[in-house]
Amino acid sequence: MSRRIRGGETCAIARTVDVLRDPWSFLVLREAFGGVTRFADFRDALSIASDVLADRLAALVAAGILRRETYQDEGSRPRADYHLTAAGFDLLPVIGALQQWGDRHLPDHRGPTVVRRRVGSDEPLDVAFVDHHGHRVDLDEVTFERTAAYPNPRRA
Amino acid sequence: MSRRIRGGETCAIARTVDVLRDPWSFLVLREAFGGVTRFADFRDALSIASDVLADRLAALVAAGILRRETYQDEGSRPRADYHLTAAGFDLLPVIGALQQWGDRHLPDHRGPTVVRRRVGSDEPLDVAFVDHHGHRVDLDEVTFERTAAYPNPRRA
Repeated sequence: MSRRIRGGETCAIARTVDVLRDPWSFLVLREAFGGVTRFADFRDALSIASDVLADRLAALVAAGILRRETYQDEGSRPRADYHLTAAGFDLLPVIGALQQWGDRHLPDHRGPTVVRRRVGSDEPLDVAFVDHHGHRVDLDEVTFERTAAYPNPRRA
Repeated sequence: MSRRIRGGETCAIARTVDVLRDPWSFLVLREAFGGVTRFADFRDALSIASDVLADRLAALVAAGILRRETYQDEGSRPRADYHLTAAGFDLLPVIGALQQWGDRHLPDHRGPTVVRRRVGSDEPLDVAFVDHHGHRVDLDEVTFERTAAYPNPRRA
């Protein structure tokens, strides 16, 4: 990676938010997780300007989060649509964690717009830290330990 | 909430990314979780312009994520520092999920800069969906179900 990244190119958070970049990227992902694939459907769902949407979709494709495919409806010209890749699908905990936080700490009087559930069940799900046994770990038991690769732009 | 929010003000993801807004906010949070509290230390760690940092800190304070406090070193004028609130601390799964994704899907040859561990242990931690028993749920078992409050700007 040759381009300079805010916050240090060795940092996984910096690299990830450099790709996601602004609120629109997260909202495009929200729609993709909801099953939207077509340009016009993203545009209509988000009321986003076409040039901004095209830019965000291209960035997500370049990062390997979305895959661009061509389809053709009968009697129409070929068009592109956008599908989550396996890497893109792995962003689900990011989107779920943002949603969980907003529902808890910036609640809206109309209530949650989306509930996280186990497929085929009414059981609500949380996003949390888990240990290698797959058991939830409370936040006050979590620590982030820096390695030698931790960015320090002043030293770089 | 009267101001218009991209992606619909009923959406918790939209409200949250409206606050976090751009890569700097996530990086300021990264430093706050690392124990940074002082303006100069955020600025030096991130190589961020002072006016941009002041703007991001003010937005995080306004959103209840950071709390501004005044301290005074002996012989110096009073200064402000910034501490994570309980709500701010609740963003740890968001930061952890971004980091986990970046380490997996945008790896750097120098390896991870931070490892997520249980306090007092070498055990690495993941960010994942969990059920109400606190057991990990695989991504392919997770579904986001829309409620009647789901945003649709075209209908609004």
